[in-house]
Amino acid sequence: MPEHAPCRLGVLVSGSGTNLQAIIDRIESGEINAEIACVISNKADAYALTRAAQHGIPAIVHENSRYPERRSYDAATVELLRSHKVDLVILAGFMRIVTDVMVNAFPHAIMNIHPALLPSFPGLHAQQQALDYGVRFSGCTVHFVDCGTDTGPIILQTVVSVEQNDTEETLSARIQSAEHHTFAAAIKLFTEGKIQVHGRKVLILN
Amino acid sequence: MPEHAPCRLGVLVSGSGTNLQAIIDRIESGEINAEIACVISNKADAYALTRAAQHGIPAIVHENSRYPERRSYDAATVELLRSHKVDLVILAGFMRIVTDVMVNAFPHAIMNIHPALLPSFPGLHAQQQALDYGVRFSGCTVHFVDCGTDTGPIILQTVVSVEQNDTEETLSARIQSAEHHTFAAAIKLFTEGKIQVHGRKVLILN
Repeated sequence: MPEHAPCRLGVLVSGSGTNLQAIIDRIESGEINAEIACVISNKADAYALTRAAQHGIPAIVHENSRYPERRSYDAATVELLRSHKVDLVILAGFMRIVTDVMVNAFPHAIMNIHPALLPSFPGLHAQQQALDYGVRFSGCTVHFVDCGTDTGPIILQTVVSVEQNDTEETLSARIQSAEHHTFAAAIKLFTEGKIQVHGRKVLILN
Repeated sequence: MPEHAPCRLGVLVSGSGTNLQAIIDRIESGEINAEIACVISNKADAYALTRAAQHGIPAIVHENSRYPERRSYDAATVELLRSHKVDLVILAGFMRIVTDVMVNAFPHAIMNIHPALLPSFPGLHAQQQALDYGVRFSGCTVHFVDCGTDTGPIILQTVVSVEQNDTEETLSARIQSAEHHTFAAAIKLFTEGKIQVHGRKVLILN
């Protein structure tokens, strides 16, 4: 019997791409049976593009400045993703809010990672929000993207302790290392067909 | 040298008093150096009153029905607590919101426990809220009480996993067992003078 064709990922980035690198590494090691079909950046100088190129992955600059508004930018993004036959869209430090155009084009097939235990501390500067609030634990959340800000159904979370002498930098570093394996684990589950979504609840099959 | 006089606790309850029992047990075992000066219930039939009486603790029924509003009820509660020379007020399943009258009478000396990882899921039915949202982790939070609902500075938190087949009952039971040791640990820190509050941040001294 032929093996299952690997799941095709489209990774959207804006910056250095440490989560992208973590995904590339796990695909290359065979841990995740997937192929990165394209990396799309809304910033021309994102280092993530260099990482993609170094691994022979199509790296596309797709700037938002020449689109009048978010939905038309997203429509063009959807076209790009479809032309690369993407099954799963990964927001890996993509610093733009996606609209219903993207969400409806890839229902339950867009994943985002957020550096907090949602629903605590959505939005920007989640690590600093956690420090300012004075929580003892934070972490990261991989979720499907819906039209809200960090509100979609939760796939996986990892807890990280907050230390009394933490700064935004030290807490962010601790959370980031949790992000890498949590994101990879969620992608792996998706590629293995082990995720079912029922309303807000994500069921992991075993 | 004489030993430090034990910290005097005033415990406010409305129900069965499982957290009260956990505190009593740890005082009797010598784990916490404190004395429960009184247990005050706003419900005449709270089983917590029976627990108090069984351990020789003054058990006071202090119903709110004959008070026109929250602040006058709280003023009477403050009088009761002061007459029992209470140092630390413990809300142990006390199902009423306290007002500024209580908060100002015992600054940073009223503790509450909430069955969620605040700031997620404040208010009633926190466990069901967590299940409905679909989080992978919840827990409990011991915090100082301010004039908001479950918004005060966080002393300690304990994380509890949420299982895919959890019901409100099974999750509540798992969180409740975490509540007992978390509440006890926070009270012990207070009695040992190891808690400092700086704005929203609670520093645990060691």
